[in-house]
Amino acid sequence: MSGRHPRSERDPLDLQGLVEYVAERVTPHPDEYRRVNAVIDEVLWRVRGALEAHRIEATVTLEGSVAKDTWLSGEADVDVFVQVSPLKDKGFLEAACLPAIRDSLKGYTMVERYAEHPYIEAYVKDVRINVVPCFRVERGEWLSAADRTPYHTGYMKEKLTPALRREVRILKRLMKGSGLYGAEAKVRGFSGLLCELLTLNYGSFLDLVKAASRWRRRELIDVEGYYQGRESDALKIFPEPLIVVDPVDPYRNTAAAVHEDTMWGFISVSRLLLERPNIRFFYPEALSLEEASIMDSLGKAGGNLLVLDVGVVDAVVDVVWSQLYKAEKVLRRLLIDAGFKVIRSTAWSSPDNRCLIFFKLESVELPPTYRHIGPPVEMMGDSDKFLGRHLKAVDTAAGPWIEDGRWIAEKLRRYRRADRLIAEKLADGGGSIGIPSKVCESLKKGFRVILNEEASALAEIPGALEEAYRFLSGRPIWLDAAL
Amino acid sequence: MSGRHPRSERDPLDLQGLVEYVAERVTPHPDEYRRVNAVIDEVLWRVRGALEAHRIEATVTLEGSVAKDTWLSGEADVDVFVQVSPLKDKGFLEAACLPAIRDSLKGYTMVERYAEHPYIEAYVKDVRINVVPCFRVERGEWLSAADRTPYHTGYMKEKLTPALRREVRILKRLMKGSGLYGAEAKVRGFSGLLCELLTLNYGSFLDLVKAASRWRRRELIDVEGYYQGRESDALKIFPEPLIVVDPVDPYRNTAAAVHEDTMWGFISVSRLLLERPNIRFFYPEALSLEEASIMDSLGKAGGNLLVLDVGVVDAVVDVVWSQLYKAEKVLRRLLIDAGFKVIRSTAWSSPDNRCLIFFKLESVELPPTYRHIGPPVEMMGDSDKFLGRHLKAVDTAAGPWIEDGRWIAEKLRRYRRADRLIAEKLADGGGSIGIPSKVCESLKKGFRVILNEEASALAEIPGALEEAYRFLSGRPIWLDAAL
Repeated sequence: MSGRHPRSERDPLDLQGLVEYVAERVTPHPDEYRRVNAVIDEVLWRVRGALEAHRIEATVTLEGSVAKDTWLSGEADVDVFVQVSPLKDKGFLEAACLPAIRDSLKGYTMVERYAEHPYIEAYVKDVRINVVPCFRVERGEWLSAADRTPYHTGYMKEKLTPALRREVRILKRLMKGSGLYGAEAKVRGFSGLLCELLTLNYGSFLDLVKAASRWRRRELIDVEGYYQGRESDALKIFPEPLIVVDPVDPYRNTAAAVHEDTMWGFISVSRLLLERPNIRFFYPEALSLEEASIMDSLGKAGGNLLVLDVGVVDAVVDVVWSQLYKAEKVLRRLLIDAGFKVIRSTAWSSPDNRCLIFFKLESVELPPTYRHIGPPVEMMGDSDKFLGRHLKAVDTAAGPWIEDGRWIAEKLRRYRRADRLIAEKLADGGGSIGIPSKVCESLKKGFRVILNEEASALAEIPGALEEAYRFLSGRPIWLDAAL
Repeated sequence: MSGRHPRSERDPLDLQGLVEYVAERVTPHPDEYRRVNAVIDEVLWRVRGALEAHRIEATVTLEGSVAKDTWLSGEADVDVFVQVSPLKDKGFLEAACLPAIRDSLKGYTMVERYAEHPYIEAYVKDVRINVVPCFRVERGEWLSAADRTPYHTGYMKEKLTPALRREVRILKRLMKGSGLYGAEAKVRGFSGLLCELLTLNYGSFLDLVKAASRWRRRELIDVEGYYQGRESDALKIFPEPLIVVDPVDPYRNTAAAVHEDTMWGFISVSRLLLERPNIRFFYPEALSLEEASIMDSLGKAGGNLLVLDVGVVDAVVDVVWSQLYKAEKVLRRLLIDAGFKVIRSTAWSSPDNRCLIFFKLESVELPPTYRHIGPPVEMMGDSDKFLGRHLKAVDTAAGPWIEDGRWIAEKLRRYRRADRLIAEKLADGGGSIGIPSKVCESLKKGFRVILNEEASALAEIPGALEEAYRFLSGRPIWLDAAL
């Protein structure tokens, strides 16, 4: 979505009106159903044909939001599952199934992707298709992470009514519009299945939003009532901040991927939506950016932006993201330990895995000296050691002296500039300070530490300037709607 | 004392040798005794005569270190007490006694001083004389703070042997040389009487030093054994860090004036003296300073010196100092609350009560923004309030956003410069922020906030440049001896 929404600007909708407006926009029209079904028919026919040609015995089924009829207009995303006998192994999925699937889609844009195991993503007449091999197992006897999906599809098809499907679509639009949608490592948010389960549990979009506005940490949702009367067991089994018991597997938390801050994000969105309904929670305004506006925004925030351009990290996207978050955390700790104040930080990667880590510091440069607090004078041995270490040291700017019964000294800083500290510690890729392997490999090939106005150079990386702008604003996208 | 001590430089003394060398230097020679006694005789004769002429019935006695024969060569300081009937009141001391005393010393340089009540300080043939009126009371029936003194003199005269007097002199020299001598508000250190009691308790200078090196907070010394077997009572009665029970008044702590840091100073000096005996603990080297050297020292410490020139505070010296310390504390808190990091601070006044407060900051200027931590998102009401306050505020540089379950915002600072903050808050004298009255009065007449190199202007205030230099070094004077 882009552009303003004149309707909401001129004529603010009440919550009920807003929900109806969104429902209308997200429900696919018959033409769209026809177009998507045609693609599905073709893909199923092709995949089945190719498996037969490869002499692979498999059940080919339609799964996901299209199968459950919970997809959003304009955003069809077709999941086709190839279920083979549980007597096969994971090597078979990769060595036998993938080539057959690849053959089936010959002629279309195609890329191999990887979740727990590899699968194929293709674009057939502008519709994204995922063809995922897995095992045709009995319930509970999961051999791969994808094996639950057909059971989820079956469960939801049984439970969802047309009315509920409409509610699911509204919720998904809210999650997408608010940047909370997706269980992948990058988003750490709400999956499609989770949206369906939440809707099912509360009965309607508005009832869910009302409930979520009052959720607390460690909220427990258990549609099938597996833990009824022994909720504390569920709280013991699942360590995550939000717990939604999987209806086809009571030992799995469907919300396991939801990061605490994404959960609070949804809770806040729910509260705000109830207080001040606004279409922008569902359809945020696109940023219309030039370099000038990011520089303006940098100026308003007083500078002290530091961006580490990691380069391209060569790994599947979930690995890229989990390593990138780890690297962000390591560098944040490094900066804090050296005395820098990190106001906030974030990580970002472009579709081709060009990775950036953003830091907003209180200051890129620290004062020359700092107050170093030593041991209590009462502790003779420690006092001796402290005096031995600091009294005549060249990096003692002043002191030591006694204050409130402790030794204190004024010390010269080892690192005064954040960019130099990072450049020095990453010179070897940063493995020694805990930067994970794939990010490390990329850093070894070269990196750049970008300060303030130099960030305008990010314009060459598609999407990076928008991310810089958003980072500088500091607000999650959904909070713009409350402005 | 000034100049180097060639003997200690060329030929370091062992501790025993050092103590003997000091003992020799501090013991007055017969000529000096004769000269001082002649002054005493004259003063006693003059005071007695004047009292008689004023028809005041009083007992005039010699007190203090000269009476107890514990004064240091070159530093005679004569205390003459005028004890009147306890039937008189404090008004009588001031209205009747002071004029008589003033008459007695007509022709000599004289100044009225004030402890708990007024007394006269005069210089007679280069010897400083204090003539103090008080009440001739029974032991324990104290009417003024000075009434205990004749009892202290009597007690010490009875207890001190020639050998002990020598040890007291050595100890006093150490306290003076180390900047720990004096119970006045400025020093918050060890009085002459306290030095005598400590020596008496441990029997010799070296035994005291050995014991003090192992003192802990709330050390209890009780020469007369008033609290023997019920030491915990003493600890309950006396709140101070060091407790030395007054032998003439078990409800008084002779060490009450000793500040915790002065106590730790003496403890540290004791340890250092035992480990590396050095004449400089007794006779520190004088600073030979020009403006250039303070600027050098400022450069080494990286700048960020801020000096508040309070002007002359019109009050007796102990009031000046207690208010000055209070003002220092108030301003330190003001700076810290505004985000400045105070590395250290101190107060200073010239002999004519020109007052300065020194601050060494990590930085005189703060970054434009800071990280402001808000309430947990879980708390709905507080979250609402936080968003209401910060989402659209003009001083919100970025955010709010959610981090670790809390709201955070990046805020613009109200005060970025320490000098401007102080100038603004003291514009009305600072009464509203808690600056005490006398300092406040002085500030209202005008003050100056001096930064870094501007400190060379302190050269016009006698002693201020030396103090600035010492402040920048950050070391207590006795620690120089360990360098």
